Amino acid sequence: MDVASVVNMLIHHLGADRVLTEKEDILPYGFDGTATLKQLPACVCFPRDAKDVAVAIKLASEQKLPVVTRGSGTGLSGGSVPIAGSLVLCLAKMDRIIEVDTANLTLRAEAGVITQKVYAAADAVGLFYPPDPGSMKISTIGGNVAENSGGLRGLKYGVTRDYVMGLEVVLADGSICRLGSKCVKDVAGYNLRDLFIGSEGTLGVVTQVILKLLPKPAARQTLLATFTAMDAAAAAVSAIIAAKIIPCTLEFLDQKTLRCVEDYANVGLPRDAAAVLLIEADGHAAAVDEDASKIEELCWIHDASSVRLAADADEAVQLATARRSAFSALARIRPTTILEDVTVPRSELVGMIRAVEQIAKKHNLNIATFGHFGDGNLHPTILTDELDSEEMHRVEAAIVDIVQETLDRGGTITGEHGVGLAKKPFLQHQLGDNSYDLLRLVKRAIDPQGLLNPGKIFD
Amino acid sequence: MDVASVVNMLIHHLGADRVLTEKEDILPYGFDGTATLKQLPACVCFPRDAKDVAVAIKLASEQKLPVVTRGSGTGLSGGSVPIAGSLVLCLAKMDRIIEVDTANLTLRAEAGVITQKVYAAADAVGLFYPPDPGSMKISTIGGNVAENSGGLRGLKYGVTRDYVMGLEVVLADGSICRLGSKCVKDVAGYNLRDLFIGSEGTLGVVTQVILKLLPKPAARQTLLATFTAMDAAAAAVSAIIAAKIIPCTLEFLDQKTLRCVEDYANVGLPRDAAAVLLIEADGHAAAVDEDASKIEELCWIHDASSVRLAADADEAVQLATARRSAFSALARIRPTTILEDVTVPRSELVGMIRAVEQIAKKHNLNIATFGHFGDGNLHPTILTDELDSEEMHRVEAAIVDIVQETLDRGGTITGEHGVGLAKKPFLQHQLGDNSYDLLRLVKRAIDPQGLLNPGKIFD
Ligand SMILES: Cc1cc2nc3c(=O)[nH]c(=O)nc-3n(C[C@H](O)[C@H](O)[C@H](O)COP(=O)(O)OP(=O)(O)OC[C@H]3O[C@@H](n4cnc5c(N)ncnc54)[C@H](O)[C@@H]3O)c2cc1C
Ligand SMILES: Cc1cc2nc3c(=O)[nH]c(=O)nc-3n(C[C@H](O)[C@H](O)[C@H](O)COP(=O)(O)OP(=O)(O)OC[C@H]3O[C@@H](n4cnc5c(N)ncnc54)[C@H](O)[C@@H]3O)c2cc1C
Repeated sequence: MDVASVVNMLIHHLGADRVLTEKEDILPYGFDGTATLKQLPACVCFPRDAKDVAVAIKLASEQKLPVVTRGSGTGLSGGSVPIAGSLVLCLAKMDRIIEVDTANLTLRAEAGVITQKVYAAADAVGLFYPPDPGSMKISTIGGNVAENSGGLRGLKYGVTRDYVMGLEVVLADGSICRLGSKCVKDVAGYNLRDLFIGSEGTLGVVTQVILKLLPKPAARQTLLATFTAMDAAAAAVSAIIAAKIIPCTLEFLDQKTLRCVEDYANVGLPRDAAAVLLIEADGHAAAVDEDASKIEELCWIHDASSVRLAADADEAVQLATARRSAFSALARIRPTTILEDVTVPRSELVGMIRAVEQIAKKHNLNIATFGHFGDGNLHPTILTDELDSEEMHRVEAAIVDIVQETLDRGGTITGEHGVGLAKKPFLQHQLGDNSYDLLRLVKRAIDPQGLLNPGKIFD
Repeated sequence: MDVASVVNMLIHHLGADRVLTEKEDILPYGFDGTATLKQLPACVCFPRDAKDVAVAIKLASEQKLPVVTRGSGTGLSGGSVPIAGSLVLCLAKMDRIIEVDTANLTLRAEAGVITQKVYAAADAVGLFYPPDPGSMKISTIGGNVAENSGGLRGLKYGVTRDYVMGLEVVLADGSICRLGSKCVKDVAGYNLRDLFIGSEGTLGVVTQVILKLLPKPAARQTLLATFTAMDAAAAAVSAIIAAKIIPCTLEFLDQKTLRCVEDYANVGLPRDAAAVLLIEADGHAAAVDEDASKIEELCWIHDASSVRLAADADEAVQLATARRSAFSALARIRPTTILEDVTVPRSELVGMIRAVEQIAKKHNLNIATFGHFGDGNLHPTILTDELDSEEMHRVEAAIVDIVQETLDRGGTITGEHGVGLAKKPFLQHQLGDNSYDLLRLVKRAIDPQGLLNPGKIFD
């Protein structure tokens, strides 16, 4: 492993300003959004395009330097935390939107474009890019693709995968592949595009994406309902779905979360409520009006203690703040915030929330839960202190319990944050040996040297 | 290759009534819906479940018998045409709907269930399974998954892939894998589920599916518009999309097709029209009404010669007949009907239709074109006679021209029918060497012996 020669060749190819090796320069690339994980790489470089990526990969491969791809480093499973002695390919400077095609409703962008910029470019021509991870103001679209990120509109609009039509990917041998296209239907050969979506930088480097856009919904209505019991909130959700209404957003906060949010953002939530639902309907104005009144009615029927319907867009933003600020509000309470990301079939969600409360009690921990009710995706958030090793043992035990409870309910260990380092110990248990072996088989076939993000997802 | 021993073991495991070897019994399994392709297998068997499939695969593997999976054999690219000396696994008798889960909006079925039965089971509880291939009354859901079939509602609702949440798959080594689940979000490990969707029986045998259902749209409106020029029809389509309307159906017939349809079904189409559009809007009643009047207005603005709005469900069915009977109507004209399936970005469709007309002239062939305008998916249908070898040479030359024209326009050689045998010669040209090599790498990794449907998609 001759790091210096790789660095010199990179400087030769990319220019000195695109290659970092000094400790103070590479420090910001030594962690991501995941608590407790840190590791400095050997070098960070900033490619301009797929060809630069291919050059960097080949150089690293010759010297057996692991390659870790990085977008904005907002990941919550440690996916872009470097491996010791690795080369970090940071795509943040590949940030051009190449084309917005209003006839075919597509957008082509480089992988380093910030998600919010994709949304804005679509919005500017009356179109709509639905996936809206909480981190969209800083995350890259490449990171979203690599994690198959979700967001607050998942119930109706799905996740990042549902909007990816094509990818340009650089493989571990430096070859550049185009997968998918602007065609809305394409069954020519295996769907390898979807294999790379959610592959967390372990199969290839995504350098460009073609995204599908939708017409912007004409109208939107936002409601915030509070309940004195989580079961009542769950019953309201079931009734909404049973009434054949699919809101675009159906989010929840538990009591602990809502109290933190209230302390932090003063949005006027009743501190004695046990659950808050944030519900948004969008679409045709008449449909939205009807859906919103039906939703309001169903909340009241199921014992809501309050229902607020936003009078205008400003109030809608204010109501959504309650949910959008959940993570930041919780992160202030204790030094370390560990965000879980389990998902269960929607009908299992309320039981799962209750189980998490029991687990918190059992291990004497502070766990607040919020998340995407409509998707069955909950974020039990463990408020702790990584310097307190005794408490951290209890945290680990609680995570094991949460995972087991999830799998018992037919759920998954990660709904949107990925496996990375954080969920690696649990993956085989979820998938079973046959599916797990198949995963590793595919990894070995596509990256036989184990060059790309080794040690993530599995060993 | 000891066929007799495999047959004996199969009879032992499955019972004699589930194993066919007599020529007259296996004759119906010697072809699919694709013109000109035929080949008898060595044996046909009917497994009851994934375990039976695993047993059959292991027996075949020991004796190096190729395994060809078959649903209903309606495929249009030769995917289930047997290989000489092969074992055909026909899943048609695995036809149970296992569960309809109205709380989670999912349906679990065995692979051999007829597509129409899936639709009906959802419909019976007020839910909706959107993918509706023209063959849905006879095709199996397993075949739909293996081909990633489209249908007439693709523009708004997408294709089969968009409704597959989970699969049970038997691999070439007989291991049974479960991929995906009832969770609407799941990023635990690579997305292998989507790799099997559209893999045409070459990577594994799909034995069970978990499908996503939607609430049934409350209202629906059907329009049939005729135009004196295809360009006018295309302009109307562009205007509809530009008006931010996404109809669920946006189908077209060219003049040749509409004349055949009229001769066959007498639906009252003007024989001098150059193009017919069948448009359906669905959703909330008010939205549908508005969309339908806007669509009607846009058709008139773009020089429609007639627009009929269905007054009721019966008339809607009658209007849709014009499009639904296209294939059958054309199939009556000449002994052999070769259905092409190319797809281009929507904005390229009208140019592509014109190019096909030129190609027909150049090779002096009778080619009628219809298809899914909204998806950019056209079916140039070559009306010919496979016994006329001189004409068949011209047919082959025309197909090469159509494929080249498609690729020049950024299109794909198959939008929904798959590669199978029919499109195999063109796949590498479309994908480029790197992506093509990657495909073969994946095949070799997952089916190293080349046991499953060898010679389909690639050699
Ligand atoms: C406050 C906050 C809120 C969040 N909210 C959400 C949410 O609502 N939903 C959600 O799903 N996630 C959420 N996240 C998690 C995170 O933002 C997403 O996973 C995001 O997609 C990561 O993007 P990134 O550019 O920061 O990627 P990084 O963190 O840099 O990388 C993430 C992973 O992707 C790989 N990668 C990055 N770019 C590429 C590429 N171009 N090619 C190949 N691999 C690549 C990396 O190797 C790594 O494994 C949130 C995070 C924070 C901090
Ligand atoms: C009149 C007509 C109209 C049609 N309309 C459409 C249309 O609108 N849209 C469209 O997309 N297609 C259409 N088709 C094509 C065809 O119906 C579809 O491809 C359908 O999905 C095939 O289903 P099947 O059960 O008949 O599969 P088969 O023809 O038996 O098999 C098709 C392929 O799938 C594989 N396969 C089948 N079952 C399994 C399984 N369980 N596991 C693994 N592999 C399997 C086979 O090996 C083969 O490669 C039409 C065909 C006809 C004849």
